[in-house]
Amino acid sequence: MAVSLDDVKKLREMSGAGMMDCKSALEEAGGDVDKAFTILREKGVAKASKRAGRATGQGVVDAYLHSTSPDFPPQVGVLVEVNCETDFVAKSPDFRKLARELALQIAGFEPRWVTREDVPDETLVQEREVYEAKARQDGKPEQIVPRIVESQVENFLKQSCLMEQAYFREPGRTVQQIVAEHISKLQENITVRRFARFNIRES
Amino acid sequence: MAVSLDDVKKLREMSGAGMMDCKSALEEAGGDVDKAFTILREKGVAKASKRAGRATGQGVVDAYLHSTSPDFPPQVGVLVEVNCETDFVAKSPDFRKLARELALQIAGFEPRWVTREDVPDETLVQEREVYEAKARQDGKPEQIVPRIVESQVENFLKQSCLMEQAYFREPGRTVQQIVAEHISKLQENITVRRFARFNIRES
Repeated sequence: MAVSLDDVKKLREMSGAGMMDCKSALEEAGGDVDKAFTILREKGVAKASKRAGRATGQGVVDAYLHSTSPDFPPQVGVLVEVNCETDFVAKSPDFRKLARELALQIAGFEPRWVTREDVPDETLVQEREVYEAKARQDGKPEQIVPRIVESQVENFLKQSCLMEQAYFREPGRTVQQIVAEHISKLQENITVRRFARFNIRES
Repeated sequence: MAVSLDDVKKLREMSGAGMMDCKSALEEAGGDVDKAFTILREKGVAKASKRAGRATGQGVVDAYLHSTSPDFPPQVGVLVEVNCETDFVAKSPDFRKLARELALQIAGFEPRWVTREDVPDETLVQEREVYEAKARQDGKPEQIVPRIVESQVENFLKQSCLMEQAYFREPGRTVQQIVAEHISKLQENITVRRFARFNIRES
């Protein structure tokens, strides 16, 4: 089917993909721009994983301070470092906006690590012990205890690792998917290198 | 000697000390307000150390981002948590200004720990080994090597611990002295609980 040039342009702006990729995605989607965007995103994520090994020596540090009321000084603060490959991307509004979104995510959803690979082994051992004791205490049949424990460990990781958390603006997608979308759009590998989150209330 | 009420008021504003303390300090200083302030500060620091054990459950988190050029995103970021005893002090402009000064100090002078008690033992062991090897390589007499090593360890601690660093606005005073002055002025214990400093350039 013929697709309009306006739609191709619109899809290009949305996705950052090339003209021909946009055209064929629109044809595949029967002219539906949103559907075409999803098709491109799926392809884009494939591209992103190819980029995932590339060195990221540039980037931005962003901070976010949160006050509970206007006359009160900030009680929660976040610092986040997001890396990319070139200073061209580091300077781009899209990249800086991503860093800001990640700072907001960390402020609101209190991750403790960037990825599940960063979780110390002893933490996982302790969590497993707690879940196991709880399952036995609840009188769960012995043969299903391991399955209960593993599903609770999985939940723990999804809640405490930034990249696996649900993105606060679109709970149906993970932070990892948002980062992958930016890798695809900005055509550079992007990594969240580290973050810090301080809260006065923590004992 | 008789001291003017204006001077007492001025000294009170400078020091936060009580009316009678200001009056007697001015008398002791022969009416010289700056000298009287020094006298009060000496007494104040004595007060500060009495306060140093008190619980600090309130405070503020501050952040500072540094860009090397105006069109460039921040490459260095600092997050700092400063604690005090009450939300009344936490809200005060003097306290918040102190937190900001500490953030600037950390951004510019790259401390690695808050106090020397925070430096891991293995770091000190490694530093000592390096200084010792260097002193021997430089052909220093064996009997003075321990003295050289200890003086270099002392330098290392003064450079890498925030509280022992020279305050960037008044290199003749340490950050510890600036904090003690605020303890005296604000009449509450104040502690720097923790900080983070991220730099894109760090490998």
